[in-house]
Amino acid sequence: MFDNIKSIAIIGSSNSTGKVGYLLTKNLVDFGFNGKIFPINTKENKILGINTFSSIDDISEDIDLAVIVIPAKFVNDEVRKVVKKKIKYLVVISAGFKETGEEGGVLENELIDIIKNSSTKLIGPNCLGFIDTRNKINVSFAKNFPTVDSLSFISQSGAMGTAFLDWAEKENIGVDLFISVGNKADIDEEYLLKRINSKLISFYLEDIKFGKKFLETGRNVNRKTPCIVIKPGESTKAQGAISSHTGSIAGDYKLIKSSLEKNGFTLARTIGEFFNLAKTFLFSPLPKNGGVAIVTNAGGPAVITTDLVMSTNSLYLANISKDTEDILKKHLPRESNFHNPIDVIGDALSDRYYYALDAVLNEDEVGSVIVILTPQIMTDIDNCAKTIASMKKYNKPILVSFIGGTAVENGLTILHKNKVPAFNFPEDAVNSLNKLYKYSMFVDNEVSKSELKSNVDGYTNENRLTIKKEDSYIDTYELLKSYNIPLINQEWIENIEHLKNFFDNSEKKSVSIKVISKTYTHKSDLGLVINNVDNEEKLIESFNKLEGLISHYNIKDAKILAQEYISGGLDLFIGGTNDTNFGSFVLFGTGGIFAETINDINILSSPNENEDIKRMIEETKMGKIILHNNRSKKYNTDGVIELIKSLNSLLIENPWIKNIDLNPVILTEDGGIYIVDARIDKV
Amino acid sequence: MFDNIKSIAIIGSSNSTGKVGYLLTKNLVDFGFNGKIFPINTKENKILGINTFSSIDDISEDIDLAVIVIPAKFVNDEVRKVVKKKIKYLVVISAGFKETGEEGGVLENELIDIIKNSSTKLIGPNCLGFIDTRNKINVSFAKNFPTVDSLSFISQSGAMGTAFLDWAEKENIGVDLFISVGNKADIDEEYLLKRINSKLISFYLEDIKFGKKFLETGRNVNRKTPCIVIKPGESTKAQGAISSHTGSIAGDYKLIKSSLEKNGFTLARTIGEFFNLAKTFLFSPLPKNGGVAIVTNAGGPAVITTDLVMSTNSLYLANISKDTEDILKKHLPRESNFHNPIDVIGDALSDRYYYALDAVLNEDEVGSVIVILTPQIMTDIDNCAKTIASMKKYNKPILVSFIGGTAVENGLTILHKNKVPAFNFPEDAVNSLNKLYKYSMFVDNEVSKSELKSNVDGYTNENRLTIKKEDSYIDTYELLKSYNIPLINQEWIENIEHLKNFFDNSEKKSVSIKVISKTYTHKSDLGLVINNVDNEEKLIESFNKLEGLISHYNIKDAKILAQEYISGGLDLFIGGTNDTNFGSFVLFGTGGIFAETINDINILSSPNENEDIKRMIEETKMGKIILHNNRSKKYNTDGVIELIKSLNSLLIENPWIKNIDLNPVILTEDGGIYIVDARIDKV
Repeated sequence: MFDNIKSIAIIGSSNSTGKVGYLLTKNLVDFGFNGKIFPINTKENKILGINTFSSIDDISEDIDLAVIVIPAKFVNDEVRKVVKKKIKYLVVISAGFKETGEEGGVLENELIDIIKNSSTKLIGPNCLGFIDTRNKINVSFAKNFPTVDSLSFISQSGAMGTAFLDWAEKENIGVDLFISVGNKADIDEEYLLKRINSKLISFYLEDIKFGKKFLETGRNVNRKTPCIVIKPGESTKAQGAISSHTGSIAGDYKLIKSSLEKNGFTLARTIGEFFNLAKTFLFSPLPKNGGVAIVTNAGGPAVITTDLVMSTNSLYLANISKDTEDILKKHLPRESNFHNPIDVIGDALSDRYYYALDAVLNEDEVGSVIVILTPQIMTDIDNCAKTIASMKKYNKPILVSFIGGTAVENGLTILHKNKVPAFNFPEDAVNSLNKLYKYSMFVDNEVSKSELKSNVDGYTNENRLTIKKEDSYIDTYELLKSYNIPLINQEWIENIEHLKNFFDNSEKKSVSIKVISKTYTHKSDLGLVINNVDNEEKLIESFNKLEGLISHYNIKDAKILAQEYISGGLDLFIGGTNDTNFGSFVLFGTGGIFAETINDINILSSPNENEDIKRMIEETKMGKIILHNNRSKKYNTDGVIELIKSLNSLLIENPWIKNIDLNPVILTEDGGIYIVDARIDKV
Repeated sequence: MFDNIKSIAIIGSSNSTGKVGYLLTKNLVDFGFNGKIFPINTKENKILGINTFSSIDDISEDIDLAVIVIPAKFVNDEVRKVVKKKIKYLVVISAGFKETGEEGGVLENELIDIIKNSSTKLIGPNCLGFIDTRNKINVSFAKNFPTVDSLSFISQSGAMGTAFLDWAEKENIGVDLFISVGNKADIDEEYLLKRINSKLISFYLEDIKFGKKFLETGRNVNRKTPCIVIKPGESTKAQGAISSHTGSIAGDYKLIKSSLEKNGFTLARTIGEFFNLAKTFLFSPLPKNGGVAIVTNAGGPAVITTDLVMSTNSLYLANISKDTEDILKKHLPRESNFHNPIDVIGDALSDRYYYALDAVLNEDEVGSVIVILTPQIMTDIDNCAKTIASMKKYNKPILVSFIGGTAVENGLTILHKNKVPAFNFPEDAVNSLNKLYKYSMFVDNEVSKSELKSNVDGYTNENRLTIKKEDSYIDTYELLKSYNIPLINQEWIENIEHLKNFFDNSEKKSVSIKVISKTYTHKSDLGLVINNVDNEEKLIESFNKLEGLISHYNIKDAKILAQEYISGGLDLFIGGTNDTNFGSFVLFGTGGIFAETINDINILSSPNENEDIKRMIEETKMGKIILHNNRSKKYNTDGVIELIKSLNSLLIENPWIKNIDLNPVILTEDGGIYIVDARIDKV
């Protein structure tokens, strides 16, 4: 991105060692930038031996990048000068903008206006600046000088940035770009994602400015370049409480998480995990399969690691063939374990690691290897590290855990210098490998190769309704029907003759009768629902009972609804939501009155492939029941998939809809799908 | 334990620097043991300048501890001499016993026989030895010399032991005892648990020798001294697949985990977690409540930490009172965040940490504090560490995360030297604090103060049956009935008149009719179950249909069973299992045909308190439904608790039972409890 920067102006450069303007200039000089530096300061003649200008207007030469580090109230005047000079990039480090409240917000809007119609692209304000190691540009006031490699980190938090650089220094991880984006008044994560050309791109994001656009760009980028995201904010929205009001389910975190993952992003939940994933993705090739071989000099940790591998539900312990076992037996002592996990036992020197690794890495079924070492009395730790590093030639992921403290420190350093992802604890190796494998599945999956579309192809229904924020029970019914989403057979009942008539025409010869009222929503609790009415005598009795209750409770807006009654079957929840930032989502899971407790709802962004929908269904407990029941029951899963696709069309074409809940949708053993109740919330 | 050891003999001591006998003697000398050392070696005169004996029999003085490091085949002869001299403790380091197979097993059995009737207590064989820092005894061949403190570690894996010592050295964690127990031929974890007097006792256990005894001792010890256990083996048994065959549910890991936790043990799932818990429990007082205050110099990591605190479901963010807020406002800059999490912002020096910590630690609602620091340009990291350490005077847990690498390293060291649990990442602080809080709840809980009993008090039923491994459907029925666990009203049906009679006497006037056969167990699939038969016409039709199917499939052992039919209600699973090592367990969860998919079963060891059972119920999804439904339904939870207690009595009094499944147990809205099916598996 910054390859053509040959000259940099620092507006607010300084000779006072405590000031950011000084630190920034010093960092740039010390980092070895070999273009021109123009310190701007009204009082000084020279800063760090470089001639100083009192204004950017005094510079006649071309400037490619300007950095502003002066108090907020003076910033916009300088920005106007920068824009006038058509400087390509501008970094505003100064704080005091929208993050400080109303007054700062006014300043920031003014800044945005100045930039909007210019040829200048702005990073910040309120940021730490950026570091580009390949071009030797450090216009940040971070203390660290990272070495060159191909990991980029885009951070919305300055503190996470400094922590990241400090971590990278300690772990010998080279950096390509570090960009602190601050308030994102102009340049945002999507702009950078599209342009950065690193081996690995990682983000700390507190919000995503243009959700849909970020997903689209991310889907393309992730096909070749993995992107890791740490996105806090899980607990702020009630993630646990699943209610029929899907707003709170879909809202925020789950929704963002689902859409990022579906488009190939790798999510880190914690800071430690983020760092572990960063080094793994940076150093490792992708595994060809989920088969893992464990090579260890200690039994206990290998058992723990086996537990962890198995609990991923995607990785598994690879089978070691008879041939490989024979090779192992030739080189390892009799007491070794020749089955996976392969135990080269406590007195192993590096040669045993060599033979064991060489053998298992030749196995096709071994997609990756986890190496465990504990510092036993004989262990030649550094040699072991070098031996492991030499196995990179096999081009398979090798993740290493050297368990301990002081004794293993140098071994870990050797591994990192040789770009082998290494950890203190095997759990970090397993989790990182698992996410690497999941990413490899995204890359391999045909679905990922398709474009992300906002529309469902091939669906045509001439009779579709698009109601504009109307609200009535029957409108919902008609709207759904027009999208091939028919509610169960039902009618408003005027009188007993009408009810008898509905009953006589009913398919199942059994009906439910309900009192519908806006004020009395807990109808079951008040006895306002009578189910399984299956003969004329009961019909009359039930109707009279409900009429009685209506006058007893004095329900002014009461209407009586009759529905076909379905006995037995499974209660599903199917729903959808429109998010203004991320687009439409569909939901599937366990429904009925216990949906809230069972908490078995999955979410999927804008699906256009049956396979995607099927996977969403399969990931729920209810989905496993309807897909994998080996009994004589024939649940109509294809019908459910079609229903979800129709619902998605409806959501996309009716952006005024916030949420739709179909709950319960009853699936019967004979293939029936009955939508018993529906509810639409407007934006 | 080893306070009175004044003299130590090392059988197999050596002058060859590569030999374990040499290393062991050198370790003992270098560690500063101030008693007498007797190296035994047939060839040498002096080892490390100490006079050597050619046999232990040549020593006339008292010996308190003997250590054997000679090849396995010579060990037992030496052990006989040790036993004869009535030496109190013996450590057999030598490998080559039962871990190597049959031959070694014979040797080990011989060793056990020699020790059994002696006054000598044996550690090992096949172990690393032990280290007692207070008595300056190091009879291990570990490389590390730990400093004195009050953390003991008992390890069944030598490798985990060396990793532990290496970790302790790096993290400045002092050790009391490290004991490598090896094959546990004599001394086991329960023996040590009873005798070790450390502030914190931790274990790595691959198996538990005497389960029930270990639980009983542990329950007593945990009331004052926390014990941490890492116990691998989760995946080896099918933990996921919940089937109606409870053996596989209860089997092993879940069962052990449940019984350890119930008796106050703190479980670590991974090695990293184990180390984190060890330093937290060693350094921290117990929290008085679950309220957490977060003090940070960075917003992003504080958001992540808030997410993690909330997701524990037990810790919560404490409210900061108006008074404290006023104090904070006096000392912190305007831009700070005065609500929890308290953000002292990026340019904070240690004084801001001082004021913020001092203020929140004075709040009653703050049970503990998590401090977060990122290395910003101004941050005086070492001073911050010292300031945080000075807050120990409040006697509340303070867990610290210094995020980064090189820059924060020394700060972390300062914290550890001052016995403040400190981590790189906030997730480790949150998880450790959560387990510390859970342990404090065990200590405070009245239930923990009661004895662990194998029997249910106050339950008397004169008519109890104890059948001895008999097997028939009706026996199960009778046995259960005799424990007040009545199956739903049912009868074997001989003919249609019999069936009509059963129907006429049925409570609900609706019955199920089933064909029971040992060979046709999937009766639903074959249509061998007809439910909800509610009039005489259907009765005849169903009976004839089943008779037809019996002859169609030619089911030789067919019998027809009629049962009361319950429509609606919730399907529960209630079960129990007897474990030969750990005693009896009861199970509760979601039942019915989907139990396997829903995977919602909880387990509890030998309950004798209603509160325990209620908690077990509440921890399942089904439990939440029956306990917390706010509708008009009255599920009989007390009845379920009584049923579980009865089942527990039955298990204890009939040790021949391996598993009992009651599935489904139907709970109806009107308070009914109907056990529809029961199955007993024998040991």
